[in-house]
Amino acid sequence: MIIASTSTIHGGNYLEYLFPTLESHFQDCTEILFVPYARPGGISHDDYTLTIRLAFAKINKKVKGLHEFENPVEAIENAQGIFTGGGNTFLLVKQLYQNNVMEVLAKVVENGKPYLGSSAGSNITGLTMQTTNDMPIIYPPSYKTLGLIPFNLNPHYLDADLQIKHMGETRETRIKEFHAFNTIPVLGLREGSWLEVVGEKILLKGNLTARLFKQNEIPEELEPETDLAYLGK
Amino acid sequence: MIIASTSTIHGGNYLEYLFPTLESHFQDCTEILFVPYARPGGISHDDYTLTIRLAFAKINKKVKGLHEFENPVEAIENAQGIFTGGGNTFLLVKQLYQNNVMEVLAKVVENGKPYLGSSAGSNITGLTMQTTNDMPIIYPPSYKTLGLIPFNLNPHYLDADLQIKHMGETRETRIKEFHAFNTIPVLGLREGSWLEVVGEKILLKGNLTARLFKQNEIPEELEPETDLAYLGK
Repeated sequence: MIIASTSTIHGGNYLEYLFPTLESHFQDCTEILFVPYARPGGISHDDYTLTIRLAFAKINKKVKGLHEFENPVEAIENAQGIFTGGGNTFLLVKQLYQNNVMEVLAKVVENGKPYLGSSAGSNITGLTMQTTNDMPIIYPPSYKTLGLIPFNLNPHYLDADLQIKHMGETRETRIKEFHAFNTIPVLGLREGSWLEVVGEKILLKGNLTARLFKQNEIPEELEPETDLAYLGK
Repeated sequence: MIIASTSTIHGGNYLEYLFPTLESHFQDCTEILFVPYARPGGISHDDYTLTIRLAFAKINKKVKGLHEFENPVEAIENAQGIFTGGGNTFLLVKQLYQNNVMEVLAKVVENGKPYLGSSAGSNITGLTMQTTNDMPIIYPPSYKTLGLIPFNLNPHYLDADLQIKHMGETRETRIKEFHAFNTIPVLGLREGSWLEVVGEKILLKGNLTARLFKQNEIPEELEPETDLAYLGK
């Protein structure tokens, strides 16, 4: 699995900063199955899939949208590799449950099918979607997600701006509120960082540190190449 | 009702900017019933209530916490005035349902009991909590809220910072996603703004404009003193 904080970094094109990683990650795939359910900005499944098709064309991969298949469970079972894009996590989770693909998606990725997630598509690899930054625009049947890593993610992690005069909660305050009621560790993954999950290892990649929050503990900054698998032990 | 974007503006003390308004709003009350359920930063009901007690002491009002009563429904029925403070909206809504007070709270406020909300406590006066900025740290049985105004609120409304290099969604993008699936109008209420609901009128107060979002329409800026009651007609 490649689990990215964001699809796009400032000044770059869609997925561009990840192309070298993706070329090796998807080396055995000629076609990627794209899960368009998160619909950023409310765009249609077709429009979203077209964007992804154009991006993956640059590394010579074809793309099919999951919505193009009559049987989405079979489509996931038969896929060579899978990419779930960002958008709204509530919508994504609702659609995954509604189409009965949450379970099969977890199963095939656990069995080694190459998976890429960005933003909302990364969020769902955690135990629950409860540390998303998104608005609850739709009511999902559960907040439980794929559970492919033994913690939760906060993608697009943002440090508090000490200059700002806005009184809304900082990201750190929100995660602290989460930990008033939940014991699951939370990894704040900054834009430009990603996790590379191979075998038993969960490695932090990119040039930045990531911020790890645990219940009743002071948050810590993790260096690139840290293996986070220990959180599941 | 006084429905405030925030409890505190930058550089001020808790509720301070609203004191002149609150003195007249709560003029017939010697004691305010405080709903501490939203627990900002996960603080306890007691600690939160103490903060509020100290703030209201400055305008000579006593404060009791709703959690101090054995029968919360009766406490709400008997209150002279009610204040619901900010924090996490998911937690607030979950607790309101769990303690069976959502319905009675709507009823007494509709019948004219003075109500103050800030942030999460304002959010719940709308039709649903779906345009909150908070994290889903807890799973509420429904997103439906008090429905005392004929639209939804986005408190702490924040304009997009065009200088910023962060790629996370802007507030406007999030509300646009909401409108891909919902027809309810959304009022982006900036910090320092509040709504004054008296009789049939819903007046925008404070010095700032507010941003109104409707499905499939270009957002518009509303001037102070605009009456928003027309949104329910």
